[in-house]
Amino acid sequence: MSDAISPLAPKKQPKMPAIDGVRIATAQAGIKYKGRTDLLAMVFDEGTTAAGVFTRSLCPSAPVDFCRQNLTGGKARILVVNSGNANAFTGKKGRETTAATGKAASKAAGCGESEVFLASTGVIGEPLDPAKFSHLLEGMVKEADATGWAEAGKAIMTTDTYPKYATAKVMLGDVEVTINGIAKGAGMIAPDMATMLSFVATDAPIDAPALQDMLSKGVGKTFNSVTVDSDTSTSDTLMLFATGAAEKRGAPRISDPKDARLAQFRRALNKMLKNLALQVVRDGEGARKQVEITVTGAKSSRSAKRIALSIANSPLVKTAVAGEDANWGRVVMAVGKAGEPADRDLLDIWFGDIRVAHQGERDPAYSENATSDYMKRDEVVIRVDIGLGRGKATVWTCDLTKEYVAINGDYRS
Amino acid sequence: MSDAISPLAPKKQPKMPAIDGVRIATAQAGIKYKGRTDLLAMVFDEGTTAAGVFTRSLCPSAPVDFCRQNLTGGKARILVVNSGNANAFTGKKGRETTAATGKAASKAAGCGESEVFLASTGVIGEPLDPAKFSHLLEGMVKEADATGWAEAGKAIMTTDTYPKYATAKVMLGDVEVTINGIAKGAGMIAPDMATMLSFVATDAPIDAPALQDMLSKGVGKTFNSVTVDSDTSTSDTLMLFATGAAEKRGAPRISDPKDARLAQFRRALNKMLKNLALQVVRDGEGARKQVEITVTGAKSSRSAKRIALSIANSPLVKTAVAGEDANWGRVVMAVGKAGEPADRDLLDIWFGDIRVAHQGERDPAYSENATSDYMKRDEVVIRVDIGLGRGKATVWTCDLTKEYVAINGDYRS
Repeated sequence: MSDAISPLAPKKQPKMPAIDGVRIATAQAGIKYKGRTDLLAMVFDEGTTAAGVFTRSLCPSAPVDFCRQNLTGGKARILVVNSGNANAFTGKKGRETTAATGKAASKAAGCGESEVFLASTGVIGEPLDPAKFSHLLEGMVKEADATGWAEAGKAIMTTDTYPKYATAKVMLGDVEVTINGIAKGAGMIAPDMATMLSFVATDAPIDAPALQDMLSKGVGKTFNSVTVDSDTSTSDTLMLFATGAAEKRGAPRISDPKDARLAQFRRALNKMLKNLALQVVRDGEGARKQVEITVTGAKSSRSAKRIALSIANSPLVKTAVAGEDANWGRVVMAVGKAGEPADRDLLDIWFGDIRVAHQGERDPAYSENATSDYMKRDEVVIRVDIGLGRGKATVWTCDLTKEYVAINGDYRS
Repeated sequence: MSDAISPLAPKKQPKMPAIDGVRIATAQAGIKYKGRTDLLAMVFDEGTTAAGVFTRSLCPSAPVDFCRQNLTGGKARILVVNSGNANAFTGKKGRETTAATGKAASKAAGCGESEVFLASTGVIGEPLDPAKFSHLLEGMVKEADATGWAEAGKAIMTTDTYPKYATAKVMLGDVEVTINGIAKGAGMIAPDMATMLSFVATDAPIDAPALQDMLSKGVGKTFNSVTVDSDTSTSDTLMLFATGAAEKRGAPRISDPKDARLAQFRRALNKMLKNLALQVVRDGEGARKQVEITVTGAKSSRSAKRIALSIANSPLVKTAVAGEDANWGRVVMAVGKAGEPADRDLLDIWFGDIRVAHQGERDPAYSENATSDYMKRDEVVIRVDIGLGRGKATVWTCDLTKEYVAINGDYRS
């Protein structure tokens, strides 16, 4: 954990309202950290539906396997998240831990084991002893209350320098519903001490298949469009829970993801996912600048996204931004290595509104001074037009600084 | 350019012998650098054959396009290399420069324009004015001599901290032939100031198609198995020239790449390509450690290489090595993100001879102290057994240090 808060942290945290049907408790289990909370229990009323999106890693953590299996039931009563140990690459012991924790959580919440969801973040490869925290769950479920959101984000932090919150009110039919979300970073991964986790809850009554459809579609332009260091965690987990409590107040139950009444909710959800994803980027390890990369004119939007990620993951582009250097040559390099259709002589590149390259050459009108000034900002926008088609994508990343190397090179030794 | 020589530099440089049929001159053209040579002319006797392998970037530099075109003729009389400007992303002006330089070089060497080869390395996106150096070529061809090899490696350096040389003598039939090679790095790319270039010459009489076959096959386990920062230059160029002068001394002319008499030559060439490629890695920007990564037991050797490169390019693995941290959790992460068949519960991982993980868990016999001692070495070997098949690959990289960020972040601004 870093002592200094990222300079890109939000100026103030939103005040998190209650969500009808969700109660929260946190605790200090002392799994690894001392003097701070490291355990979160989110308890849901009966009837809560669940959706989830997980890491694409082929070596996922035990909790990811556990959640994927339970998600087939589509119902949730309790979510248990610990920080300090990721329970990843822990083999048979890892599965024993998730089984034991699942059992303890289901007993505490008085629900079936298939209604339990688990997430763990922290050190990888070390066995996580469920005895360290499973005995706390019963008390946590009892004391959990609707006002716990403000503490929820803190209990799941690892190398994060600030907790990440978002909240929104939106109309579903004629009834106002609430969406709350929390997240943690802080590398796209740093398996010792990070992993991207995010949990979103709402009182909207939405059936599990519709919820899953919305979440799966929502991540493409949000959580799946951010990268800190190109490394993918074994534990990345994003879950969405819908208690349905607003149904009592007259909100319509939604079972078809194409239901027109979902439009406003979907927009608000997608905006929240983007908000939380950007908070993760802005707290990327060592980050001093947020970088938005838009690629237009590619052969397809899939191709545009690949090119954008090639730029966003290039160490040379990221170090150039850290050095406040509008180094468009490195952008060209990253376009060239993406392996997607591109023609050097058609490329246009902008930093902010300044076109630095036009049709394969330095733009003659480009002012080095204006560009240098632009690069001093803490939010830098790079735009590349490929000039071949209509494919478009935007991704977000942060710069690569000496602090990233320090955090990740000095961490354990 | 860095003032400090890489701690991984060779203790001494080989003494480079003459190659019959090759004459060399260097000059100070002042393209960007002052007080050092930045222009190399390698002049070949009539009958010299050529082979080349170039960047896979879809936005290659003008000299790469020029070489690819001339290579179809298979004959070389002169190679001109400049440092200080890469003539990349220079559009129409870039092509005018290669055309003008090609013309001047062909006039100086008294050969056809299709027998000229060009390479440029240095700043990207800035027009390269051929008037800065093309007038020097005629004098250089006149003064070129067989002893110029020791100077050749210096003239092509950019951020390299040492020139890179290799030489070998090998029997072709009953006749000893010589192979000389030079190279420069120093990132896999750093478009402002690097690019991988390497030029190898021999007096062996080998026809162009056989030469190309040998070079194309030789790069797979050598130059195409090294990575400094995952970034691919617009200008990477590896060329092999065979003057055939040894034919006068009785060496057999080889036209079939499967000719059994080539076996020894091929081994020596591949060993030299590996030697030069490793010299590039060991001079990677900011490098303090060489990292060899071997993946065994993958589904195929192609799959093994992808996994190995995923590990080698992971910023988190590279920073862990810089921090002398045997962080096998990050190796698992990199296996998981490679997208290749892998099963967490079958993975074994070694640092040197120490098995740190066995079948998906920390190896109970693994000594943290012995591993910490091992990580202090300047050459670290990481081995991963996937446990699924017989595919195997080895790649080489270097660690990721704060100096890399400093070199690439502070470079221009």
